[in-house]
Amino acid sequence: MAWFGQPVLIDELLFQTKHGIVDQSLHARMGAEPTNGDGFGLGWYDDGGEPALYRSEAPAWSDANLRELAAHVTSHAFLVHVRAAIGSPVQQTNCHPFRHGRWLFVHNGYVADFPHLRRDLMLALDPDRFAAVHGSTDTEVLFQLALTHGLEDDPITALERTVGLVEQTARRRGCDCLVQASFGVCDGSTLWAVRYATEGPPRSLFTTAGVETVRRLYPTDHRLARLLPGDRLIVSEPFSDLPGLWHEIPPNTSVSFEHRGELRDQRPFQPIAP
Amino acid sequence: MAWFGQPVLIDELLFQTKHGIVDQSLHARMGAEPTNGDGFGLGWYDDGGEPALYRSEAPAWSDANLRELAAHVTSHAFLVHVRAAIGSPVQQTNCHPFRHGRWLFVHNGYVADFPHLRRDLMLALDPDRFAAVHGSTDTEVLFQLALTHGLEDDPITALERTVGLVEQTARRRGCDCLVQASFGVCDGSTLWAVRYATEGPPRSLFTTAGVETVRRLYPTDHRLARLLPGDRLIVSEPFSDLPGLWHEIPPNTSVSFEHRGELRDQRPFQPIAP
Amino acid sequence: MAWFGQPVLIDELLFQTKHGIVDQSLHARMGAEPTNGDGFGLGWYDDGGEPALYRSEAPAWSDANLRELAAHVTSHAFLVHVRAAIGSPVQQTNCHPFRHGRWLFVHNGYVADFPHLRRDLMLALDPDRFAAVHGSTDTEVLFQLALTHGLEDDPITALERTVGLVEQTARRRGCDCLVQASFGVCDGSTLWAVRYATEGPPRSLFTTAGVETVRRLYPTDHRLARLLPGDRLIVSEPFSDLPGLWHEIPPNTSVSFEHRGELRDQRPFQPIAP
Amino acid sequence: MAWFGQPVLIDELLFQTKHGIVDQSLHARMGAEPTNGDGFGLGWYDDGGEPALYRSEAPAWSDANLRELAAHVTSHAFLVHVRAAIGSPVQQTNCHPFRHGRWLFVHNGYVADFPHLRRDLMLALDPDRFAAVHGSTDTEVLFQLALTHGLEDDPITALERTVGLVEQTARRRGCDCLVQASFGVCDGSTLWAVRYATEGPPRSLFTTAGVETVRRLYPTDHRLARLLPGDRLIVSEPFSDLPGLWHEIPPNTSVSFEHRGELRDQRPFQPIAP
Repeated sequence: MAWFGQPVLIDELLFQTKHGIVDQSLHARMGAEPTNGDGFGLGWYDDGGEPALYRSEAPAWSDANLRELAAHVTSHAFLVHVRAAIGSPVQQTNCHPFRHGRWLFVHNGYVADFPHLRRDLMLALDPDRFAAVHGSTDTEVLFQLALTHGLEDDPITALERTVGLVEQTARRRGCDCLVQASFGVCDGSTLWAVRYATEGPPRSLFTTAGVETVRRLYPTDHRLARLLPGDRLIVSEPFSDLPGLWHEIPPNTSVSFEHRGELRDQRPFQPIAP
Repeated sequence: MAWFGQPVLIDELLFQTKHGIVDQSLHARMGAEPTNGDGFGLGWYDDGGEPALYRSEAPAWSDANLRELAAHVTSHAFLVHVRAAIGSPVQQTNCHPFRHGRWLFVHNGYVADFPHLRRDLMLALDPDRFAAVHGSTDTEVLFQLALTHGLEDDPITALERTVGLVEQTARRRGCDCLVQASFGVCDGSTLWAVRYATEGPPRSLFTTAGVETVRRLYPTDHRLARLLPGDRLIVSEPFSDLPGLWHEIPPNTSVSFEHRGELRDQRPFQPIAP
Repeated sequence: MAWFGQPVLIDELLFQTKHGIVDQSLHARMGAEPTNGDGFGLGWYDDGGEPALYRSEAPAWSDANLRELAAHVTSHAFLVHVRAAIGSPVQQTNCHPFRHGRWLFVHNGYVADFPHLRRDLMLALDPDRFAAVHGSTDTEVLFQLALTHGLEDDPITALERTVGLVEQTARRRGCDCLVQASFGVCDGSTLWAVRYATEGPPRSLFTTAGVETVRRLYPTDHRLARLLPGDRLIVSEPFSDLPGLWHEIPPNTSVSFEHRGELRDQRPFQPIAP
Repeated sequence: MAWFGQPVLIDELLFQTKHGIVDQSLHARMGAEPTNGDGFGLGWYDDGGEPALYRSEAPAWSDANLRELAAHVTSHAFLVHVRAAIGSPVQQTNCHPFRHGRWLFVHNGYVADFPHLRRDLMLALDPDRFAAVHGSTDTEVLFQLALTHGLEDDPITALERTVGLVEQTARRRGCDCLVQASFGVCDGSTLWAVRYATEGPPRSLFTTAGVETVRRLYPTDHRLARLLPGDRLIVSEPFSDLPGLWHEIPPNTSVSFEHRGELRDQRPFQPIAP
């Protein structure tokens, strides 16, 4: 889940929504796993520089500190991730978002057969990034690969190169070639989202409709009335059942949003093999 | 979940079963809550004296140490509990089983309006037991009340007095009077189970059929072939879908089993008001 | 440790000081315990209303989230506590600060023989406060007793009544009568500190000298040059060895500071028996 | 700390000794760090096959489950490690002992400049072992390197090759070349210990004297009277101050003990460069 727009109290989107992400951590309806209780993370931007991280291996639904932070931190841009571990240990260093300088990265998906690919993929990292891998998830390696391939200059191309490299490596190794890649990337000024799968339907990803549409559909909703042009939510699973509020991002597509601006770019996401 | 019979490796019942309790912690089908990820506990008896406890506030499904213990500890009598917190904090001191000397106690249920009754109920404790309450659950207070009312001499009567006291206190205070009480109590030699609710259907509770029935129904099942007369499993939710294997304990009933013996006693559970 | 003055980044006082409180958690020099690794808590005030809490059962020195928060949260008033458990479990609900509405409470010390007094003291609580006790520390009960005795109207008198009650209860029960009570209390606008022991020297407590003294002593210190009139630090143990910077609060004394104001009141702390 | 001899209740050596290892975790006297509160691990052998592990990121002194296990598990061979993190995160996957099949590995020491060497060292692993590295410590990589170099056939030579490789890599990279290597290795039948440093004094390592010496020195000590020939304790820091009980392992030396047998081998430990 990502918020990008006017400054809001994190609480409003995290706990004061129907079927919000913390609720989804306990019983998701669209996700691959109904329970996402293997840790979570919150990354938020404040005035300047590096975003803050709060990550925990506890389930989001029972973490008292998360409620405290949400009730006291206001931010114009934040990302929240709830985790269902697939094999790798439940530990803080395996929780998203991952961070590098101003950059945050979250991933809903997986690299099939990752344990068999891990060595090749870590060898493909910029050698200086090798020691920056502290945990054991596929996501952290994907993020460091994307940084190796220029994420800070052109995030989408870097991710296309990253996914292309992973797919090529898997094929070369005779492994299952399947990358499930719903990504969120942010530097505080722009938010990029990718919805991709090597084959089959990618994991779901939605964005909110523009403010005019929302107001036209729900003219009397008090909370929605506070939306301003340029406010955006991106979610794996819609928060509520208000029809018309959510636009599904098409499969194998990337989108980008400037802060408080319009949708800047929507284009096919096409992995680039090395 | 409780095992009572020949010594078995805990692993066999905890992780090597279809829809076992750890699996149930992630997605229960019959429980009040589909997810029981707010801590768990394992209590087991070895040769003599006090049983051992392993309790954790992590979800059972992701706890690496639980898998280690289960794979290395053999016991003739053990109880496992997975928790879905209803209001009280997720902390080790709120995890079942609770222990006093040779006694272990688990509870699947709740006392309605407990925060409003907590003071009255704690005043009703034997004063020497007051400081033994380390956590904040209703279950721990129920256990100390039952000890106050003679659990060590006559567990079922002590529990009937305890539930009777709670119901009377709730009525006197004008609170919701509802005790959901599936209890398990063990001293290593005898296992008692209670299935009770003040009104409405009590939470489910099952015991395995006798070994002859099991063998007649499933003559070719390798694992079931190892069952000996007197082996018993008690569960909130059946482990598998083998029809005929499980007997539902009737509502508002208590049962007791001597170790390796026959069903000793089955009788109505009738709260006794003070 | 408490800060009360101009808004500062928590990091500056928590991690960027020589022998700061996190460092003290690992090796205190004046405390009763050299290691305070049994959890910690941070409470801070922002614009309005209730202060925020971040509490953890991990040692302060290794908590990655504490470093994140400290690097991103600016506050004019915050309290930090590091804990050395004496008997009671290491759990979040046993970590200071404790909170009630706008009020925060920290305690460096203990009530001797507390397990024997716990029942009497909890019975002396306003009955409505009974269920607000979630953990098992003496401090939480002292705080609720002080609230029962009017902390929100007159904190020092309420604490004098609380300590008087505890001492009387201990004597009546034939227990060791010893309260070690270095307290910090804050409502965001005023900060109260108490240094008291029933007998013997109370645990150490220091406050910073006024800004004029500091500047006269250390005219060239860059960091101290930023101090403004009315800025105050209160600590159990001085952060550094700069002589003259720290004033010891005399034994059995209470002090209070208005925000950004002068020392408002310093007077003997005299327990009031019921 | 390692026990190797007659079966004992772990509790006897862990908690019922003066200045035992849990006590040392809180205030070591000889170690590089006075506090070792960044997690711990216990590995023990039972009848057959793979040893069991209990590892936690909590400090050993406050872990309730460790006390339970120690009071209920009897073993003829167990290793305990308390950790002071130097840079790497406090997480279970960074806690010793590390395990492979029947093998356990603990390390008191460090590889200087490890982050700069990590890539080269992980490339030197048998490729099939790459994905077995779940955490981020130097120790885990050393263990996997030793397995790569034949630990299962000849542990001391494998460790000499491992340390030789690390030292050569450090020199080639222009990094500080310093390996502090007090190692413990066990397969359940034999226990190997190494005390080595590239330069300067290696971290301390002691073994108990033979049972005849102990009985001659302390003929009236009740606990020591139970020692049998072949019982051995190996510790970083002596448990008590009984002079004569402990033999310091000489610097840059390896020793090995067969279970219940005599010291099998003591020889210089000499790193072997590739």
